[in-house]
Amino acid sequence: MHEIQIRKIIKNAADSKISIGDAIKKLKFLPFEDLGFAKIDHHRALRKGFPEVVFCQNKTKEQAVAIIRRLALNNNDVLATRATEDMFNDVKKHIKNAQYNKISKTIIISKNKKPKKGKILVLSAGTSDINVAEEAAVAAEAMGSNVERLYDVGVAGLHRLLSNKEKLSDANVLVIVAGMDGVLPSVVSGLFGKPIIAVPTSVGYGASFRGIAPLLTMLNSCSPGVVVVNIDNGFGAGYFASLINR
Amino acid sequence: MHEIQIRKIIKNAADSKISIGDAIKKLKFLPFEDLGFAKIDHHRALRKGFPEVVFCQNKTKEQAVAIIRRLALNNNDVLATRATEDMFNDVKKHIKNAQYNKISKTIIISKNKKPKKGKILVLSAGTSDINVAEEAAVAAEAMGSNVERLYDVGVAGLHRLLSNKEKLSDANVLVIVAGMDGVLPSVVSGLFGKPIIAVPTSVGYGASFRGIAPLLTMLNSCSPGVVVVNIDNGFGAGYFASLINR
Amino acid sequence: MHEIQIRKIIKNAADSKISIGDAIKKLKFLPFEDLGFAKIDHHRALRKGFPEVVFCQNKTKEQAVAIIRRLALNNNDVLATRATEDMFNDVKKHIKNAQYNKISKTIIISKNKKPKKGKILVLSAGTSDINVAEEAAVAAEAMGSNVERLYDVGVAGLHRLLSNKEKLSDANVLVIVAGMDGVLPSVVSGLFGKPIIAVPTSVGYGASFRGIAPLLTMLNSCSPGVVVVNIDNGFGAGYFASLINR
Amino acid sequence: MHEIQIRKIIKNAADSKISIGDAIKKLKFLPFEDLGFAKIDHHRALRKGFPEVVFCQNKTKEQAVAIIRRLALNNNDVLATRATEDMFNDVKKHIKNAQYNKISKTIIISKNKKPKKGKILVLSAGTSDINVAEEAAVAAEAMGSNVERLYDVGVAGLHRLLSNKEKLSDANVLVIVAGMDGVLPSVVSGLFGKPIIAVPTSVGYGASFRGIAPLLTMLNSCSPGVVVVNIDNGFGAGYFASLINR
Amino acid sequence: MHEIQIRKIIKNAADSKISIGDAIKKLKFLPFEDLGFAKIDHHRALRKGFPEVVFCQNKTKEQAVAIIRRLALNNNDVLATRATEDMFNDVKKHIKNAQYNKISKTIIISKNKKPKKGKILVLSAGTSDINVAEEAAVAAEAMGSNVERLYDVGVAGLHRLLSNKEKLSDANVLVIVAGMDGVLPSVVSGLFGKPIIAVPTSVGYGASFRGIAPLLTMLNSCSPGVVVVNIDNGFGAGYFASLINR
Amino acid sequence: MHEIQIRKIIKNAADSKISIGDAIKKLKFLPFEDLGFAKIDHHRALRKGFPEVVFCQNKTKEQAVAIIRRLALNNNDVLATRATEDMFNDVKKHIKNAQYNKISKTIIISKNKKPKKGKILVLSAGTSDINVAEEAAVAAEAMGSNVERLYDVGVAGLHRLLSNKEKLSDANVLVIVAGMDGVLPSVVSGLFGKPIIAVPTSVGYGASFRGIAPLLTMLNSCSPGVVVVNIDNGFGAGYFASLINR
Amino acid sequence: MHEIQIRKIIKNAADSKISIGDAIKKLKFLPFEDLGFAKIDHHRALRKGFPEVVFCQNKTKEQAVAIIRRLALNNNDVLATRATEDMFNDVKKHIKNAQYNKISKTIIISKNKKPKKGKILVLSAGTSDINVAEEAAVAAEAMGSNVERLYDVGVAGLHRLLSNKEKLSDANVLVIVAGMDGVLPSVVSGLFGKPIIAVPTSVGYGASFRGIAPLLTMLNSCSPGVVVVNIDNGFGAGYFASLINR
Amino acid sequence: MHEIQIRKIIKNAADSKISIGDAIKKLKFLPFEDLGFAKIDHHRALRKGFPEVVFCQNKTKEQAVAIIRRLALNNNDVLATRATEDMFNDVKKHIKNAQYNKISKTIIISKNKKPKKGKILVLSAGTSDINVAEEAAVAAEAMGSNVERLYDVGVAGLHRLLSNKEKLSDANVLVIVAGMDGVLPSVVSGLFGKPIIAVPTSVGYGASFRGIAPLLTMLNSCSPGVVVVNIDNGFGAGYFASLINR
Repeated sequence: MHEIQIRKIIKNAADSKISIGDAIKKLKFLPFEDLGFAKIDHHRALRKGFPEVVFCQNKTKEQAVAIIRRLALNNNDVLATRATEDMFNDVKKHIKNAQYNKISKTIIISKNKKPKKGKILVLSAGTSDINVAEEAAVAAEAMGSNVERLYDVGVAGLHRLLSNKEKLSDANVLVIVAGMDGVLPSVVSGLFGKPIIAVPTSVGYGASFRGIAPLLTMLNSCSPGVVVVNIDNGFGAGYFASLINR
Repeated sequence: MHEIQIRKIIKNAADSKISIGDAIKKLKFLPFEDLGFAKIDHHRALRKGFPEVVFCQNKTKEQAVAIIRRLALNNNDVLATRATEDMFNDVKKHIKNAQYNKISKTIIISKNKKPKKGKILVLSAGTSDINVAEEAAVAAEAMGSNVERLYDVGVAGLHRLLSNKEKLSDANVLVIVAGMDGVLPSVVSGLFGKPIIAVPTSVGYGASFRGIAPLLTMLNSCSPGVVVVNIDNGFGAGYFASLINR
Repeated sequence: MHEIQIRKIIKNAADSKISIGDAIKKLKFLPFEDLGFAKIDHHRALRKGFPEVVFCQNKTKEQAVAIIRRLALNNNDVLATRATEDMFNDVKKHIKNAQYNKISKTIIISKNKKPKKGKILVLSAGTSDINVAEEAAVAAEAMGSNVERLYDVGVAGLHRLLSNKEKLSDANVLVIVAGMDGVLPSVVSGLFGKPIIAVPTSVGYGASFRGIAPLLTMLNSCSPGVVVVNIDNGFGAGYFASLINR
Repeated sequence: MHEIQIRKIIKNAADSKISIGDAIKKLKFLPFEDLGFAKIDHHRALRKGFPEVVFCQNKTKEQAVAIIRRLALNNNDVLATRATEDMFNDVKKHIKNAQYNKISKTIIISKNKKPKKGKILVLSAGTSDINVAEEAAVAAEAMGSNVERLYDVGVAGLHRLLSNKEKLSDANVLVIVAGMDGVLPSVVSGLFGKPIIAVPTSVGYGASFRGIAPLLTMLNSCSPGVVVVNIDNGFGAGYFASLINR
Repeated sequence: MHEIQIRKIIKNAADSKISIGDAIKKLKFLPFEDLGFAKIDHHRALRKGFPEVVFCQNKTKEQAVAIIRRLALNNNDVLATRATEDMFNDVKKHIKNAQYNKISKTIIISKNKKPKKGKILVLSAGTSDINVAEEAAVAAEAMGSNVERLYDVGVAGLHRLLSNKEKLSDANVLVIVAGMDGVLPSVVSGLFGKPIIAVPTSVGYGASFRGIAPLLTMLNSCSPGVVVVNIDNGFGAGYFASLINR
Repeated sequence: MHEIQIRKIIKNAADSKISIGDAIKKLKFLPFEDLGFAKIDHHRALRKGFPEVVFCQNKTKEQAVAIIRRLALNNNDVLATRATEDMFNDVKKHIKNAQYNKISKTIIISKNKKPKKGKILVLSAGTSDINVAEEAAVAAEAMGSNVERLYDVGVAGLHRLLSNKEKLSDANVLVIVAGMDGVLPSVVSGLFGKPIIAVPTSVGYGASFRGIAPLLTMLNSCSPGVVVVNIDNGFGAGYFASLINR
Repeated sequence: MHEIQIRKIIKNAADSKISIGDAIKKLKFLPFEDLGFAKIDHHRALRKGFPEVVFCQNKTKEQAVAIIRRLALNNNDVLATRATEDMFNDVKKHIKNAQYNKISKTIIISKNKKPKKGKILVLSAGTSDINVAEEAAVAAEAMGSNVERLYDVGVAGLHRLLSNKEKLSDANVLVIVAGMDGVLPSVVSGLFGKPIIAVPTSVGYGASFRGIAPLLTMLNSCSPGVVVVNIDNGFGAGYFASLINR
Repeated sequence: MHEIQIRKIIKNAADSKISIGDAIKKLKFLPFEDLGFAKIDHHRALRKGFPEVVFCQNKTKEQAVAIIRRLALNNNDVLATRATEDMFNDVKKHIKNAQYNKISKTIIISKNKKPKKGKILVLSAGTSDINVAEEAAVAAEAMGSNVERLYDVGVAGLHRLLSNKEKLSDANVLVIVAGMDGVLPSVVSGLFGKPIIAVPTSVGYGASFRGIAPLLTMLNSCSPGVVVVNIDNGFGAGYFASLINR
């Protein structure tokens, strides 16, 4: 559509229907749409097989459902995060193959199944970090990655972690989810040297300050190879892990 | 130059030297430069009579002087902020009409004097806020505004403020610079209702936390009509005041 | 009324009904009321066509409704912000032409429609920032400004922003509402150079710390021409935009 | 009782019923109780006419009511702060002359009315600060002070404050309660020079951070003569005001 | 002077030299100066025997010395705080009876000695808090109060405090200066029940955060009767103590 | 089990069923499980008579109950902290001798009573700190320590503390629980010199910032001999006290 | 060495020189060293061509130089970060081919040049962020990556960024270094969708709080595909970029 | 001395030299001194073999040296912490056997060598934490404990830690000193279960915020058995370790 518009302007100039000066003037107002196109192209190249993503937190049910439906109608795969069960029930009425995951609070609408690639390992330090870990795992799977889970392997149960060293050695990239002291990424990085995406969680009490404590621990990790995403941002970690897993 | 480039592409297509398809392809890679042009155009319209601005803090003397000289050679007016006397001495060697203001720490290189417009009043609460206030005043003058100063009129000397109410009534916009408790903008806004750009300063001690206390006071002002810029950001306040003074 | 009082005192002194000493003593107690008058005069000059404003948050329903009714009875236009639907229902019983806006949570009581002036553009980065953006828009309209809206044009959808560049070029002043990373004002200022009033929102999660993150981003904007109001303070932004739109 | 105990020990030693060594040993274990006595004596001297005070917040209804009843049975005047209506209803069943103040959330049990002394003026900046202001006023009255109130006299309505300058001049000490920007104490101190006890309130939104903003403003007041108590601590301000009002 | 001005206006009206309307107009512009006067009057009444105060921190030597000299020439007593020895040497050249206190960093210029009144006790928790404590003591003395000192009586040496209980009982008001944990005011208030002005100091290390820790401790004191001033604000504490000591 | 596995490998090598090279390879993958064993051995030696501990906060009822039941079935003593009454009711259905403590919110399942050792004294500053203090006391008892309680002995009631000096002298280690100003550990340490584990509580209001204020006070204690655990972490204090009480 | 030790134990058991029981006992104490080996193995596999890294900040010159020399003697490539010129001069005396980079403050000792792989693009928003950006670039190069630089392309000069879109499209991974508002990563992610490692810098003033503002901006980026490392941690970003560039 | 005083009073009463009433009155003023004695007694019992401690930071050289000399003259062992070399040189002039430790910045004056008891292990995560670790070690030795050191065993070099497991098993109590991410105490506690006193250090950069990051990590440790002292407070950790080592 847009390319057609440019073609018409140039053609008109070539056909002397408009002066070259006018053609320039018209073209000067196009770049932004062009930029828009360029951007989408880039992304398409980039996102091959990636679903559209809807972040439902802080949206009303009506807003969230309307966006999800509009995307699904355009035959896109859709991943909706932070979705309530109530939102899902509404979506389900219209889109039969929509699926809900109570733990990760995600809705998945999947049109065409493709083979998963690579290997991402998602670890959680405690049982109460599993929600965020699942969000990361579901996101990475939706982006086309093979994902393995290893939950509740915090430092107090270090032997559980160590007895799974094959899983750790096999993965291309690790997503590590931890609240409270947030030490797990530092320890795993010191032991295995894999690229780690660390996710602090707001789970905890007292001086964990809703995730600030593990966030700081992770940012200050003395082992290189650890990068950090926002508190509770499982999706961001899973998405980034998929970007580099390919 | 850039416009010439577009003209050439279209002309070549019109002259059938290149195909329309090729013309489109070439034009698709231009928008960014075009965007750059567009932006500069906008700015030129906007900035009529505005100098180029160089922020010298956190730059080495070499970096700062090189940038200032390059801009001045292109026949621009130049305003350099947070400039040390040492930087000025270097600039002075090459650009004879450069002028330094020790209090505001600004270098001014002015090619063509134009009449000042409107009226901006810059107030400071204390004597130790004057450096920042002068930066605001000098910036606003460099941007083409008439500026009046009213310094050391803090709340403890409220009568000094009130005895200058004509100045306050005459101004289109007020820049108010204050450290410590930062209450002056709230008080002046309550009394005079003019648009106020509040500048917190890092001057102070104890629980002023290098400007956080007055910043919070100003953000929480119960009088509407107060907006805030960064701590010690006299330039930003003077610049914004000039934008709205016209 | 007050002027009459002063006149009487001076006349009594002129008529020797009271001594000059007594006149001085009486006049010494007047200045404050005088100041009060002066202030109201100033404001009247300033506020031509401005409504009275009631901030309802942290007030009981009884308090809010009583204040709104009292102002409305004096034939004022009234704008009530942060008003609950419950407050509105009570107001509606007494004032038939009161109108409620569920999104901005504002009550408007408008006596005399006047033509709007200038042009303010209100942008929001995301859909969840719309409540605050609407508060700004409604406030600016109530203050007599033409307001255009451009919502959900965050940096992830930059092309949506760029495809509306005419709206951006036409406006005198921009109000930009954004949560989370709060980068939109910096980007728009870099592209269009208009005076921008940035409003951080508390919408978000994790390390946005209920608006601190976008507040800091906006205060530290590297593009001049950005000033900031309190977190979620749509009203303050709309009010200030109207002050400078005229 | 305690004095009797000491007397007995010395008398027994004097009567040779116990050895001096034993008397010393027994006395060596008394000082703490003695200290307790001393403290109460001091306080009694100090508190002439002061009630016993119970801080009910963070106590269960059962705990609060039990403490209030025990104190009241010992014929004390009692002031209970942060008391819920539910607590009061329970107290009322047992103590008929107990009185509840819904705004200040205080229970007063008063045995013997004494003439009030001095003059304390309690000011609030906004209507939403009145709860805390009333706690201060009720506490000061319970401590035996004359208290006058002046509410909703914030900086936006400075003329309301100034038109009450007689009240301000008459008072020995001012309690000033303010949220948001918390500028009122600085302004009043600059104008009237009275000793001021400033109380920040948690009422507000955005960057008031539940009282941190006005707390910092007050601590950084550029006018001497301002001291500060904890956020929302009306009782502490009223108590201190009474201590120095006498 | 000002009163003469008012008198002249009224007299001129009485003498029909100017119309009553003109007299009103002239008087309408006076209130602010009038307010200034009123303020000074109040202060004069209040400050009987109080010196003028100059806060030298954040002022250049030139600024500080100029202000001190101007005040001293008008025959005022002067108290300069946060003054460097360098500033003093300059002052000394011009004003022979100026005196410097190295510990409190204060300059005193005293014209007329008056008898001191009341009794203020200044306590410090540690030896490193003495600078601030001396500033409080010197300020209170300059304001006309008798001051006694009791230094290095922190909680680790509680017996030293307790062995001075007569001093504590004799004082009207206590100024307590403490860094690090800042517990001394709570303890003394629990034991003696006197009105206490607590001064947190920035002396310390680690999690004292340059005075935040003792500031919070003091604001949260569980013993009523404790009010707080800014970190290191010895002057403010001494000034307030003098206000209530009279 | 694991030891058997190692034995088998070595035996196979000794019996020449596998080569020494293969034995080495197999053993190289064992150390982690070995480490796990080592750890448990250490702990078993350490924890003689210690129960298994389940931290129920941030766990679902289903998760918490499942873990408790699994541990109890293995004939372990179990201590569950932060357990709701609802969780207990579920546990009770399956494990008859489970006991719930409403104040400390703990579930205890105790198989074999052993004699308690040593002496730990748990103090609380206020009545609202008792929940956390009880958690500490119950934990220490479950770990096999004799525990004595001394509640509501804050600095305002210092004589109550001092009249119990025998209890304080008898204890090996003190756990001191305090909110608001958190001064009790400093004072007790100054008076008695015992090792103190200080627990800040989130109980309070205003500038106690949900436990930050007492946390900082305790960390900055000027009396040595005070160590600190997380806000509200009664369990951690009781556990550590038991470790050093033995 | 270590493997020999294990071999000996097993051999001794096979040869019946020690009992199997004794062999087990001996092996039980090895795992840690084994773990050490395993770890080094992993790392060696991982780090093919990676130098040893020494972080010199907070080390004395003596410590830093000793560590660097020891590593270099073992024929390792060495990268020393945060090294002073003074440290380098000492190193240079002993190791002739050591090279110093003044901007990145790095020492490189390179034994065997290998071909660089992939493509990393390092961007800086301002000229004052270049030090940190160079640390990232040098680190990535030392790790074996091709690195391209694009400096001073902040949002105020967005066209400079856009005119380099080929560089941005070519890179596998971007390292983006920015201070103040830190918006560059969000903008670039929105435009190009590449995996971005964002590095906040402490360069700035006022409310940038030595890097907290850009850190929060980056953590809250609304564009997925952005991960964050510690403030000024150029090395960590370059290291992680190299891990995922391969 | 004090006991003699009490004896005299009782004896005088017994001998009827003073009335019992007078004896009571006199005794009522003694408790504080008595308390002082009691405290010293307790401490003497407690501190058997402990030196007097002088904290030199924030003291002038004159103050520090005077205190050290006074204590040494009374034949006490003395430990001075945070002492500069300059202070030591002054002390050395008067006290010949004074010894200085440059790393821990401690002065030791030791009169009578006694056999050390128990076993404390002091660990540091990095080389730059050694200063603080040495302060802890020296303090614990001065208090009479056997101390072993294990430095630079951070998580990145976990195998170094693990290869020293005998030292870790032998110790009664561990002091663990760590900056940056501060994860070492959590890891060691998870592996060995010993009582751990964790010391965060201010060494680091970026988001370690001069020790806040490791402080929070340690407070939030998911492994019980970890308690925390102030940032850089090596002395406090060594002192507490000695208290519980006995």
